[in-house]
Amino acid sequence: MTRGRPKSFDPDVVLEQAMQVFWQRGYEASSLQDLLAATGLSKSSLYQTYANKQALFEAAFCNYWEQRGRELRARLLEAPSPREFLRGWLLSVLDDVGADGNPRGCMLVNVANEFSQADPAVAESLRRGVERIRQVLREGLQRAQACGELSPTADVDALASYLHCVMSGLRTQVKAGVAKPAIEAVVEVAMNTLK
Amino acid sequence: MTRGRPKSFDPDVVLEQAMQVFWQRGYEASSLQDLLAATGLSKSSLYQTYANKQALFEAAFCNYWEQRGRELRARLLEAPSPREFLRGWLLSVLDDVGADGNPRGCMLVNVANEFSQADPAVAESLRRGVERIRQVLREGLQRAQACGELSPTADVDALASYLHCVMSGLRTQVKAGVAKPAIEAVVEVAMNTLK
Repeated sequence: MTRGRPKSFDPDVVLEQAMQVFWQRGYEASSLQDLLAATGLSKSSLYQTYANKQALFEAAFCNYWEQRGRELRARLLEAPSPREFLRGWLLSVLDDVGADGNPRGCMLVNVANEFSQADPAVAESLRRGVERIRQVLREGLQRAQACGELSPTADVDALASYLHCVMSGLRTQVKAGVAKPAIEAVVEVAMNTLK
Repeated sequence: MTRGRPKSFDPDVVLEQAMQVFWQRGYEASSLQDLLAATGLSKSSLYQTYANKQALFEAAFCNYWEQRGRELRARLLEAPSPREFLRGWLLSVLDDVGADGNPRGCMLVNVANEFSQADPAVAESLRRGVERIRQVLREGLQRAQACGELSPTADVDALASYLHCVMSGLRTQVKAGVAKPAIEAVVEVAMNTLK
């Protein structure tokens, strides 16, 4: 049995640990026991900070897409070129292996598929999370235009939505067991669209 | 309270009813009570045919993608042209409204995102279901080649995987609340890839 942590826990660490549980298992399948085991908190400590499982989930989910947005932008700034950033991002689905050995996907995709638009607070967080990712993609596409890798007349908004769509689809295909060569072929078709 | 049905129920009807529950709610969130209410069966009648919830789910899921494969092929044969079939299929994500008013998505996408590769029997069914859809897409692309709507040198296998990826991504975007104009823009970008 895990002893409950004292009241003075680090909220960032707890949120990260809870996020890992929800990311791997989804909302419904994450039991309170799973969450307490992962965070090392007692039930009462957890409930002193978060009113219920849903409140903890919402905080953890928001934490997820804020982190992913920052990481994605850092990758854009470090990449050899905007085009290589986009290709590398799409191909990164092949590196996705969760704690149980199975692809765990993108939490935004998982949450969209589990919740759809059924919960207003989650739907709003989803909308903001998707917008955060598209914002970085738009910046990548604008940088591609600036360095001559993409036509100056290309519709950056439409292409950002499109790349986000392809990435979401690739995440699902990897989870559905589509083989690596087929994934790589899809990425090449998608990259050829960027002209 | 719903009275349990007599033992001689129609297995096709029961499977369809159970499928609707799993499709709408996912595996984990579908309780035995939900399934009994939807099928009108008693617990003992249900368990006489299906060993457990997972066995019922596997039968219902297989039923889903077999139905979808047949429907998709019928749409291909009825469409004014192969290209219009593909565009219409992608745009059909905008008509997706479930019983609760929220998009319920494609059950293949939902199952891939809920299970990933964690369960071998579900993973195998997912693989077969995805292949069934890609088979119809390949046929559509070959028909597009035959009538001059697609280059005879286009890579039909890669484009079928690609269209399946885009469709999966669109399903997720609709569930994430992406607005109709952005969805339509993505479909146009994707259709422009088919040359």
